[in-house]
Amino acid sequence: MKIGMIGLGRMGGNMARRLMRGGHQIVAYDRDADAVAKLVADGAEGAVSLDEARGKLDSPAIWWVMLPAGDITEQTIDAIAGKANDGDIIIDGGNSFYKDDIRRAKKLAEQGLHYVDVGTSGGVWGLERGYCMMIGGDDATLELLDPIFDTLAPGTGDIPRTPNRADGVADKRAEKGYIFAGPPGAGHFVKMVHNGIEYGLMQAYAEGFDVLKGKASDKLPEDQRFELNLTDIAEVWRRGSVISSWLLDLSASALAKDGHLSQFSGHVADSGEGRWTIDAAMEEAVPINVLAASLFARYRSRVDTTFGDKMLSAMRYGFGGHVEIPQ
Amino acid sequence: MKIGMIGLGRMGGNMARRLMRGGHQIVAYDRDADAVAKLVADGAEGAVSLDEARGKLDSPAIWWVMLPAGDITEQTIDAIAGKANDGDIIIDGGNSFYKDDIRRAKKLAEQGLHYVDVGTSGGVWGLERGYCMMIGGDDATLELLDPIFDTLAPGTGDIPRTPNRADGVADKRAEKGYIFAGPPGAGHFVKMVHNGIEYGLMQAYAEGFDVLKGKASDKLPEDQRFELNLTDIAEVWRRGSVISSWLLDLSASALAKDGHLSQFSGHVADSGEGRWTIDAAMEEAVPINVLAASLFARYRSRVDTTFGDKMLSAMRYGFGGHVEIPQ
Amino acid sequence: MKIGMIGLGRMGGNMARRLMRGGHQIVAYDRDADAVAKLVADGAEGAVSLDEARGKLDSPAIWWVMLPAGDITEQTIDAIAGKANDGDIIIDGGNSFYKDDIRRAKKLAEQGLHYVDVGTSGGVWGLERGYCMMIGGDDATLELLDPIFDTLAPGTGDIPRTPNRADGVADKRAEKGYIFAGPPGAGHFVKMVHNGIEYGLMQAYAEGFDVLKGKASDKLPEDQRFELNLTDIAEVWRRGSVISSWLLDLSASALAKDGHLSQFSGHVADSGEGRWTIDAAMEEAVPINVLAASLFARYRSRVDTTFGDKMLSAMRYGFGGHVEIPQ
Amino acid sequence: MKIGMIGLGRMGGNMARRLMRGGHQIVAYDRDADAVAKLVADGAEGAVSLDEARGKLDSPAIWWVMLPAGDITEQTIDAIAGKANDGDIIIDGGNSFYKDDIRRAKKLAEQGLHYVDVGTSGGVWGLERGYCMMIGGDDATLELLDPIFDTLAPGTGDIPRTPNRADGVADKRAEKGYIFAGPPGAGHFVKMVHNGIEYGLMQAYAEGFDVLKGKASDKLPEDQRFELNLTDIAEVWRRGSVISSWLLDLSASALAKDGHLSQFSGHVADSGEGRWTIDAAMEEAVPINVLAASLFARYRSRVDTTFGDKMLSAMRYGFGGHVEIPQ
Repeated sequence: MKIGMIGLGRMGGNMARRLMRGGHQIVAYDRDADAVAKLVADGAEGAVSLDEARGKLDSPAIWWVMLPAGDITEQTIDAIAGKANDGDIIIDGGNSFYKDDIRRAKKLAEQGLHYVDVGTSGGVWGLERGYCMMIGGDDATLELLDPIFDTLAPGTGDIPRTPNRADGVADKRAEKGYIFAGPPGAGHFVKMVHNGIEYGLMQAYAEGFDVLKGKASDKLPEDQRFELNLTDIAEVWRRGSVISSWLLDLSASALAKDGHLSQFSGHVADSGEGRWTIDAAMEEAVPINVLAASLFARYRSRVDTTFGDKMLSAMRYGFGGHVEIPQ
Repeated sequence: MKIGMIGLGRMGGNMARRLMRGGHQIVAYDRDADAVAKLVADGAEGAVSLDEARGKLDSPAIWWVMLPAGDITEQTIDAIAGKANDGDIIIDGGNSFYKDDIRRAKKLAEQGLHYVDVGTSGGVWGLERGYCMMIGGDDATLELLDPIFDTLAPGTGDIPRTPNRADGVADKRAEKGYIFAGPPGAGHFVKMVHNGIEYGLMQAYAEGFDVLKGKASDKLPEDQRFELNLTDIAEVWRRGSVISSWLLDLSASALAKDGHLSQFSGHVADSGEGRWTIDAAMEEAVPINVLAASLFARYRSRVDTTFGDKMLSAMRYGFGGHVEIPQ
Repeated sequence: MKIGMIGLGRMGGNMARRLMRGGHQIVAYDRDADAVAKLVADGAEGAVSLDEARGKLDSPAIWWVMLPAGDITEQTIDAIAGKANDGDIIIDGGNSFYKDDIRRAKKLAEQGLHYVDVGTSGGVWGLERGYCMMIGGDDATLELLDPIFDTLAPGTGDIPRTPNRADGVADKRAEKGYIFAGPPGAGHFVKMVHNGIEYGLMQAYAEGFDVLKGKASDKLPEDQRFELNLTDIAEVWRRGSVISSWLLDLSASALAKDGHLSQFSGHVADSGEGRWTIDAAMEEAVPINVLAASLFARYRSRVDTTFGDKMLSAMRYGFGGHVEIPQ
Repeated sequence: MKIGMIGLGRMGGNMARRLMRGGHQIVAYDRDADAVAKLVADGAEGAVSLDEARGKLDSPAIWWVMLPAGDITEQTIDAIAGKANDGDIIIDGGNSFYKDDIRRAKKLAEQGLHYVDVGTSGGVWGLERGYCMMIGGDDATLELLDPIFDTLAPGTGDIPRTPNRADGVADKRAEKGYIFAGPPGAGHFVKMVHNGIEYGLMQAYAEGFDVLKGKASDKLPEDQRFELNLTDIAEVWRRGSVISSWLLDLSASALAKDGHLSQFSGHVADSGEGRWTIDAAMEEAVPINVLAASLFARYRSRVDTTFGDKMLSAMRYGFGGHVEIPQ
């Protein structure tokens, strides 16, 4: 199929390459002419404007917008919609908030356009491993686009089949690494929760390794201290333990490079998905202590001290005359 | 009554004074001769050794041990027990772990001695406001000591009576500010949970003030920032709001002195009680997310960064090539 | 002053009464004619419509809207604005979301109207104790309305003055129980955080009492069980302890009525403020583990089991063949 | 090598079988004669008593005790020690608390005996996948036992090698699935933290799936509800996503069998390791909000309502006249 790839950053560029390798045609556009030139060198048709891109696409046109979440995505979708013909398809492959998807899909439907949201996991590893995709949209449009997703997805590969998964009943797509999750917004919603879980998993490992590291503390009685080899512990847990995972593989790799992780300051960023997951849970009245605590740990990692901590010190001083402990 | 006060620090000294004002006699002992001298100046009989103190006490002797928790309390109780006569009473007024009380009471009972544990809240304010006491021991001993507790307690004062509290049914002692909580250990257990709650209350205020403070952040859209006067907010909440409390009074006082709390670094200590409360909850399988999070916030306040934070950074770098945000 | 009180429920009716006692005049309107009649009997002028109310008010008219948060408040403010003259003042005394206040104030300002938001704590106790108020609006309007707030507020009463609070420097209003917190929205923002803190305080007590109650559990070794008298414990903590508070007073009263709280099922509701506080903290990147856990505990209280719990059981069965424990 | 396997339950029996397949000899003992008979049928020498077992072992004797944690393990180790010769080795392969290991190792060392603690992950899957082992003991003893661990471990298999792991520098054992973690106790300590992490990972998935499930709730506005296929979501996340893991594999399998998990009540047990991890973190002053919240979620899953919840209801009734919401 012929796809207009709008946005040729690390994600968009590699997706375009994987699609071309899979036999699809790419019309490539980016504000950065160099990015376009590189993709043209790899076999794409280039475009210097959305108008030119439109002219090179089929009808219905398939637009894959792969831009950072936020205003730029919104504006680009608006611009494309302004040039679109009835039946054209706009795919947002970024990290949009799912309520924005719902709103956009309604608005575009009034114009006769189709909107598809694709949440992608796998990050920079996608060109090599394939992209795990969670997709929202109307049924007919998703069916039409199926060959595109099939190419981008990892495929079944050598990951063992899940026991209990019945042939003929279960959707094959999930086993290839993509799902049609539901109507517009459902794709990014599932991806959002994926990231919420990701935060929780990461924090669980982080706390565990913190406890291992802390066991050497000279605050402990001498006969209860252990100097543990975190590098080997991460490695051994990859091998048959209950907590083996891809995040553990990454941890093992980082620790193999430097068991002290000295290059990292530990000021941890968070993106919208973690926060939106908490919001969604609050709308549903679902308790999510772990996912929330994982987000808060990142906030805390980025400040030296909080005003709240000072309040605690002030109260302690007030009722007990306690002075603070030196750090 | 005649009481041997062992340990004349801020707490022990003031308790002795309050007891003397209430008509009791004090035999005062401390390793620090100056502390003894000061109390003698206030009307106590001094002693230069436990032996001398023993000689000046009645039979049964009443010993009130008021020392920092830990080895020194244990050793002092052992030393007193070594000199005690059948029927003597040893009161631990410090912050001992309640399981130590249970153990000690059993051991002393075999010697014919009575053990009483008194958990005290009110800290440095006790001389003026009276001491709120939670007391464990055998019934007969507690009855015998009742006049002592009655003197130390705040009394009913001008605190309004609790609605629904029936005369003649409910124990008057609670309304005077002390309770016989149960057998040995029960006093310190109730005090321990008191401190666990205290941590939670403090952290709730701390987090709320942090959110108020953060509302001025330039990360927020300009039309959604407020520069709030925390000093006045703490004050107004003292006046008819649902969250008025003594801890809020203390907060208001600290903020009235300096709305930025600049003198405090925010490295917050914790004592055994917070941790023991978590332990007790785990033994009972009671979920206590708030009390635990309050304790952990104090741990976190005392370090710049955790190894766990570095783990998060390392994993993010691993799967997304994310570099850390500068602080 | 003359105030149009729109909404004569428990809160609005009592506020109107307190204002009249303080010498103000009330024009009373409610959809429920009986509610109007009752207030007329207490000295108010009645109105059967907003139009009639407008006719009875001075210029600028002062409207106090006291309705449940949500659509009804929005619609009523719109309706009033449609009839308003330049310079009129609309006060929202309900529990609106502060971002709605910011939006409304901007819109009304374009019409030449003034908008004031008042967050109130003290609930059903306000008629007797006075209303603790956190107020947002433009300076001139708040100054104009000052006599109204002064009447509604508790006044300094017999609450001891905060140490360190300097005469002549500090705003007297806070000591009377109300503050001008900032521009429109600031009042409800401060009230919102107040409720967030309230959740945290309540949960801290709840967890502590849970640990006390659980100490009688027959899961514990027999010599480590205590049957504690929760009624007396709540009472004694009111008397000089660090954790005395109004919420503890209420707890003591409830426990004095029934130490088992048998009439309560423990399905705990939450209102918008708790959730909005989490949202605000996330916008500011402030960690609030305690406030969030307090909200989540309420969600959890309202369901028998979560799907998440079943997931845990399923995983345990998967890796260990563990069967669930019977409840 | 020749090993006395004491305790032939699911774990001990299969370990013995794996050892025999690897060329080792087993002297098998269990209180259950049938269990012994089965293992004899598989090639082991049987023993009807510890004495008989001792007689059939070499010198130094190697004892592998594989019993449920607690008193029975302690007693068995004592019994074996009572019959042991200088230089004999006792291995505790169960789930003992690491402080018990430290204590035992000291005591046995005084008798000239060696103590080794082995924490094992992989549960019922070990016979097939091999046992991931974390081992504590003195260096010489661990070296001596290396062939045993090598046989029990999974081996490198087809798990890809960790990038950055340098040949010749890094310990090969970790890549085969076992480590010498440190002195006695270190094995069970690492295994304990492993389980703490496991709780956190499980809870992160559980909460995420809860949010997915809750998105169909009719509490939400109709245009914001999704009926998501949890079975396919779990499957797709196994395929190239950041959150792929063995626990997710198990979840996918359970959901493939029944997307509603109807057979599970969701009353989730916990074993000692989760609690001990919290204890260890508190001793080290390491904040572990996620690991603790994961444990508390299990406690909460096992009760319908908590007394704390009733306290919240009672307070709300007290300050606002709020009645509880029906469930």
